Amino acid sequence: MATQTAFILGAGPGLGAALARQFARSGLGVALARRDGAAATALAAEIAALGVPTLGLGVEAGDPTAVEEAVAAAEAQLGPISCAVMNAASLVRAPFLDLTPAQFLTAWEAQAMAGMGFAQAVLRRMAPRGAGFLAFTGATASGKASANFAAFASAKFALRALSMSLAREFGPQGVHVAHVIIDGIIDSARLRATMPAMVERLGEDGLMSPDSIAAAYDYLRGQPKDAWTFELDLRPFKETW
Amino acid sequence: MATQTAFILGAGPGLGAALARQFARSGLGVALARRDGAAATALAAEIAALGVPTLGLGVEAGDPTAVEEAVAAAEAQLGPISCAVMNAASLVRAPFLDLTPAQFLTAWEAQAMAGMGFAQAVLRRMAPRGAGFLAFTGATASGKASANFAAFASAKFALRALSMSLAREFGPQGVHVAHVIIDGIIDSARLRATMPAMVERLGEDGLMSPDSIAAAYDYLRGQPKDAWTFELDLRPFKETW
Amino acid sequence: MATQTAFILGAGPGLGAALARQFARSGLGVALARRDGAAATALAAEIAALGVPTLGLGVEAGDPTAVEEAVAAAEAQLGPISCAVMNAASLVRAPFLDLTPAQFLTAWEAQAMAGMGFAQAVLRRMAPRGAGFLAFTGATASGKASANFAAFASAKFALRALSMSLAREFGPQGVHVAHVIIDGIIDSARLRATMPAMVERLGEDGLMSPDSIAAAYDYLRGQPKDAWTFELDLRPFKETW
Amino acid sequence: MATQTAFILGAGPGLGAALARQFARSGLGVALARRDGAAATALAAEIAALGVPTLGLGVEAGDPTAVEEAVAAAEAQLGPISCAVMNAASLVRAPFLDLTPAQFLTAWEAQAMAGMGFAQAVLRRMAPRGAGFLAFTGATASGKASANFAAFASAKFALRALSMSLAREFGPQGVHVAHVIIDGIIDSARLRATMPAMVERLGEDGLMSPDSIAAAYDYLRGQPKDAWTFELDLRPFKETW
Repeated sequence: MATQTAFILGAGPGLGAALARQFARSGLGVALARRDGAAATALAAEIAALGVPTLGLGVEAGDPTAVEEAVAAAEAQLGPISCAVMNAASLVRAPFLDLTPAQFLTAWEAQAMAGMGFAQAVLRRMAPRGAGFLAFTGATASGKASANFAAFASAKFALRALSMSLAREFGPQGVHVAHVIIDGIIDSARLRATMPAMVERLGEDGLMSPDSIAAAYDYLRGQPKDAWTFELDLRPFKETW
Repeated sequence: MATQTAFILGAGPGLGAALARQFARSGLGVALARRDGAAATALAAEIAALGVPTLGLGVEAGDPTAVEEAVAAAEAQLGPISCAVMNAASLVRAPFLDLTPAQFLTAWEAQAMAGMGFAQAVLRRMAPRGAGFLAFTGATASGKASANFAAFASAKFALRALSMSLAREFGPQGVHVAHVIIDGIIDSARLRATMPAMVERLGEDGLMSPDSIAAAYDYLRGQPKDAWTFELDLRPFKETW
Repeated sequence: MATQTAFILGAGPGLGAALARQFARSGLGVALARRDGAAATALAAEIAALGVPTLGLGVEAGDPTAVEEAVAAAEAQLGPISCAVMNAASLVRAPFLDLTPAQFLTAWEAQAMAGMGFAQAVLRRMAPRGAGFLAFTGATASGKASANFAAFASAKFALRALSMSLAREFGPQGVHVAHVIIDGIIDSARLRATMPAMVERLGEDGLMSPDSIAAAYDYLRGQPKDAWTFELDLRPFKETW
Repeated sequence: MATQTAFILGAGPGLGAALARQFARSGLGVALARRDGAAATALAAEIAALGVPTLGLGVEAGDPTAVEEAVAAAEAQLGPISCAVMNAASLVRAPFLDLTPAQFLTAWEAQAMAGMGFAQAVLRRMAPRGAGFLAFTGATASGKASANFAAFASAKFALRALSMSLAREFGPQGVHVAHVIIDGIIDSARLRATMPAMVERLGEDGLMSPDSIAAAYDYLRGQPKDAWTFELDLRPFKETW
């Protein structure tokens, strides 16, 4: 068992994988959870090559029971979770009158309910220990609700409120809760394949490397408890905001 | 049929009833919807005494289908809705680890899902007409998520995001969407009965009269379209904030 | 002497004049202060035709001594000031490295120092009476500091902080302090003459009528003390924000 | 000459000195500017013991000409400034009607004018190089203006607006501008001597170590340009906010 373990909910190929690599380089064992269990297992195997224990888990982020079981499994197999990142994503963009109630619910489940269930699973364990780090991935829409983003923005606002309330409730108990606002476009192989013109236009350092973002989470994880950050924003130097 | 009709979702005995009286005094017909259909009907009868057509409806605010039916019934019986207020309430306050996922979902349904379904029902009708007023009732927790308010604040943040996105999407189409932040305690007979010491301590004008709040909604309803407000806050003069 | 008197600091031909007309129509005597004393006197004469006592004063808004003298003169000639609006304006837009320290100081004096001196003059009188209304005119830049707006935005942020602190300090003493964010372009003869293409493009109700804005101040002035607004935003229905 | 140089405006014995030590440990030469030139020189000598070139300068932070001369001297003697921190402080707390216009001006000069002059001096040099880091020290009052803080909060709001405008204007030119909100009480020998009861009450990690805060600035300084932070908050784990 590792002395420290990170759990990433929403361990996709972009930021999720970068967080896993970053925490592994910092010496933490890493549990990787995402909907596609086979992909999670494959990523876990890749991260294990960095020399830390890993575990891949297929989990529906919006199902609190499944999330609790995954967290329990990770603690059993890897050890106490000291670092947890809620990174599940689900962009929805649509004219409001085209949106169905089911889509509106799904957007919220993927963010707010996933965050609630995950936070309960890890905080039930961290709070009695009086230590731990729990981070939530936010977006531009976490603080600004634009036209056509009613579903996504309301889910992201809800997630921000959840993290803010938890920071205030669990900070004095020794658990550091943080919210990271990603205000830019994350680089990926898929993006380069599907939107080459935009990638060309943004140019070097105009997209955000997942590794650069992951470094910010790792910095927050290591802050001393007399100077904790609740929220920081991240954007490329050339971003208009 | 009235030339103008108001629809209040969440027509309880406090602010909901005050809004109904205010709009009736301004000459609008009023549809009143709340979970308890008998209470809605009784309130409708009371408002009708002010000389406007009214309709009481029993509706589960978080059920989009039921809300759509109620809105359709109001338009059929009273005429086109030009003023809609989403006023459904559901305070939850609990230590986070005592909260169940079901409670978290219920809090969101009562605010965000209710707001989404209601907004769709009224905007489908207002947008083609290029006119209308849709207001959402917010609270202190709409912008600040305190400890023990994870469920309520995340629902209220979500509702605020919804209203902000809709204001941006439907404003240019001629529909005025607004968000009212009520940052104080609303006076009520029940409050005076159950918390007399607090009422005594706050003193005159330390509680908010529902009528004073309702007047703010009616002001917003009448703003000219070259100077619309998206958001205003309301609090008693002696409130600490 | 009128039973109630309004004092407008920054009584220019646009919003300042519209506020004066609005308050006069509501029955208040009106003192009008601006740098150009002859213009202030001319406007006072025009407003007097509405049947209320008026007074025009030439005042440098950023000079606290001059402002105190003007407020004293208005109280002596018109009666106790119950409504005060700080409306002095001074847009500066420049690349930051082209700005001089003198320009930066001037922008602040015209907003924050003017607001401070004016607030002291009126609050010294209102607070002992336990009543009064003091409003500050804000702008888009009151909450968002864009590139090339370092001087203007920092002055407007400072003015907003001043008004927020005063609202908290003097609210419990019975004085209502409010901040109005004007997030759009105000219509004027000069604008129509100098920028006809933009006016054409914005179309009907795309510019803000000073009268529409003034009505919002008058609404705030009349709010009951159990439901006061600190801040509201105003923008045309078609504004992108 | 060092390959990299930091310039700290407001190099007092607390956070200023901690920033100097932190940057020195990271290998930067350090220029230290504060009103008291002898104290600046003494601190420079102390930091030099860490093995980096240093320079102490007596400067009035609110005087743009003096600040420009100090920045020029630092570049001449230590080399190009790649890291600049505006850390000048000046808390004012008073009932609003006790405040003099001179105090209000002084509070602004010590924050906003100091920030403006310093930013011009360093950005004139950094922008043509297309690189550099400029940070501003904020406080709780940077975003919340409480009663009795009219002077301090309006100065801090102004400084935040300045930094926000500069981040937007100079980010695309390759210069990273950041704003750090310190939301807690910084530990110091003087605080322990003068307020022992409060120190006792806050307990371990209830005060903020200047070193912990300085580490956050150093982290921001090293962020890759595809993921820059504009703003982060820092507070002790047990702080109520």
